[in-house]
Amino acid sequence: MGYSVYIEDVQAAAQRLNGVVKRTAVVSSEDLNRIAGREVLLKCENLQHVGAFKFRGASNAVILLGDDADNGVCTHSSGNHAQALALAAKQRGVSAYIVMPKTAPRVKVMGVKSHGAEITFCEPNLAARESTAAGIMERTGAALIHPYDNPDVIAGQGTASMELFEQGGSLDAVIAPIGGGGLMSGTCITTRALFPNTRIFGAEPEGADDAARSLEVGELLLQTGPDTICDGLLTSMGEHTWPIIRDHLEEIFTVSDEEVIEAMRLILKHLGMVVEPSGAASLAAVLGPEFKALENIDRVGVILSGGNVDPGLVEF
Amino acid sequence: MGYSVYIEDVQAAAQRLNGVVKRTAVVSSEDLNRIAGREVLLKCENLQHVGAFKFRGASNAVILLGDDADNGVCTHSSGNHAQALALAAKQRGVSAYIVMPKTAPRVKVMGVKSHGAEITFCEPNLAARESTAAGIMERTGAALIHPYDNPDVIAGQGTASMELFEQGGSLDAVIAPIGGGGLMSGTCITTRALFPNTRIFGAEPEGADDAARSLEVGELLLQTGPDTICDGLLTSMGEHTWPIIRDHLEEIFTVSDEEVIEAMRLILKHLGMVVEPSGAASLAAVLGPEFKALENIDRVGVILSGGNVDPGLVEF
Repeated sequence: MGYSVYIEDVQAAAQRLNGVVKRTAVVSSEDLNRIAGREVLLKCENLQHVGAFKFRGASNAVILLGDDADNGVCTHSSGNHAQALALAAKQRGVSAYIVMPKTAPRVKVMGVKSHGAEITFCEPNLAARESTAAGIMERTGAALIHPYDNPDVIAGQGTASMELFEQGGSLDAVIAPIGGGGLMSGTCITTRALFPNTRIFGAEPEGADDAARSLEVGELLLQTGPDTICDGLLTSMGEHTWPIIRDHLEEIFTVSDEEVIEAMRLILKHLGMVVEPSGAASLAAVLGPEFKALENIDRVGVILSGGNVDPGLVEF
Repeated sequence: MGYSVYIEDVQAAAQRLNGVVKRTAVVSSEDLNRIAGREVLLKCENLQHVGAFKFRGASNAVILLGDDADNGVCTHSSGNHAQALALAAKQRGVSAYIVMPKTAPRVKVMGVKSHGAEITFCEPNLAARESTAAGIMERTGAALIHPYDNPDVIAGQGTASMELFEQGGSLDAVIAPIGGGGLMSGTCITTRALFPNTRIFGAEPEGADDAARSLEVGELLLQTGPDTICDGLLTSMGEHTWPIIRDHLEEIFTVSDEEVIEAMRLILKHLGMVVEPSGAASLAAVLGPEFKALENIDRVGVILSGGNVDPGLVEF
């Protein structure tokens, strides 16, 4: 079966991103281990540049564009990919054109601006975002870099779990959050190639559970009307991410917003770190009753995917 | 040679404090290891209750007072010991009377108040602090709990390094900051009893280097006119802490305020944690040229002693 990304792509991305992305810490806490009932190794992508793993995929994609990035890069995103692409473009010395819904959180708008990107605001719907981006690309010649459904982006995201294995050693299971599936599919490729026996799980908000439903029925279902504080996990999967997720995941656990907030609180209390809701979803799943009931998992790797909390949005 | 504290006291304190104090995380970062040139294990007492190791000693002392605490406890402190004693007294259900200089940082005054302690302000000098505290004790019958020169306090502080060894395994060296010497002397007792070959170091600000000077001449020198951002490391050592420090420390490294701020920045960048200046002094020492030149140290344990940064006081 053909996928869009193979382990060689992730390994090449790791080489390419050496010195570009941060090799983020893997940490643990005896208190969290006790609460989880097993050893939990947390990969701190909340400490990545721009505060999220997104910088891995964006950087890999921009570098691989080569001359095709000369006229700049473009994306539509209200979140961390926008900030990641803005920084990756700045480092490459080209323009970044970011289409953001006019409802985008101010903190993320400021983040994108701080990296010198040009922001175009549009109505908050997919049609407006795509047509606005298309107009910009036609006018500027900028290249589109999709937030997740792009093989180079997926390969870049895979480097997070590759590092996790290098730093944490052999793991019985690994879990990542699923929005569009870029991080999750990259995690699947890496894990299956390097550790064939490590079990692979996903975490999703109850209010945006398209991947869980898709996995259940075996076909790609789209997310409509998401309702969750996990603002990075709202989107549907894509044609590149879904087949990988479909074939590799043992199970996807859904978590409530309350469980996510409790996970955020525990990370702050026991590790002193601020993680955004989407970034805490994996740990929330690991602390839930269904995951706790799993047997033969002594060590689980959890990817904390981001740390950009919108001040005032979440009380925890 | 007789000391005021032995390993049995620390072991008893550890039993006594089980479930009272937090067993704080020990974390590390590959980036910090690379910068330090060796493996650095950080014991996160910045995540302890009230944000500092001080809660260990204060709790141990209050519990050991037994009935003698019925009329309350009293101390004079502008810092973390005040907050620690306030919380320990609240948990014991007795009054805490805290004498604070009227120049005490607002953030620490608020912390003490939040635990329901009664604060008496006085002029910012030792004579005023001691006479004010004496008056309160005479009036209330409260028992004095000294911030560091108290064997029960020292034994409680020793539990931090005991946990560090349990969590981090065998270490070639351990380092703690020195103010009055409570944490440092407790660390000495624990380390020497459990790991006779582990080298013991201290860290001090250049602007409050009384311990380094004392160690050099072999007698207790007092600190006058301290000048450093490390507000928890301003005091002189005492009759209980000094002999232990004198006999156990291989060397004390002094660090500049700039080195301390750089250590704070690195901890935030690579581990996402906020540590106060005094709390970062040990890491600052480990990252300095003198410590780097030490041979045969592959793994060093560093106690991050506190996390209560006064907002606006330090820009980093």
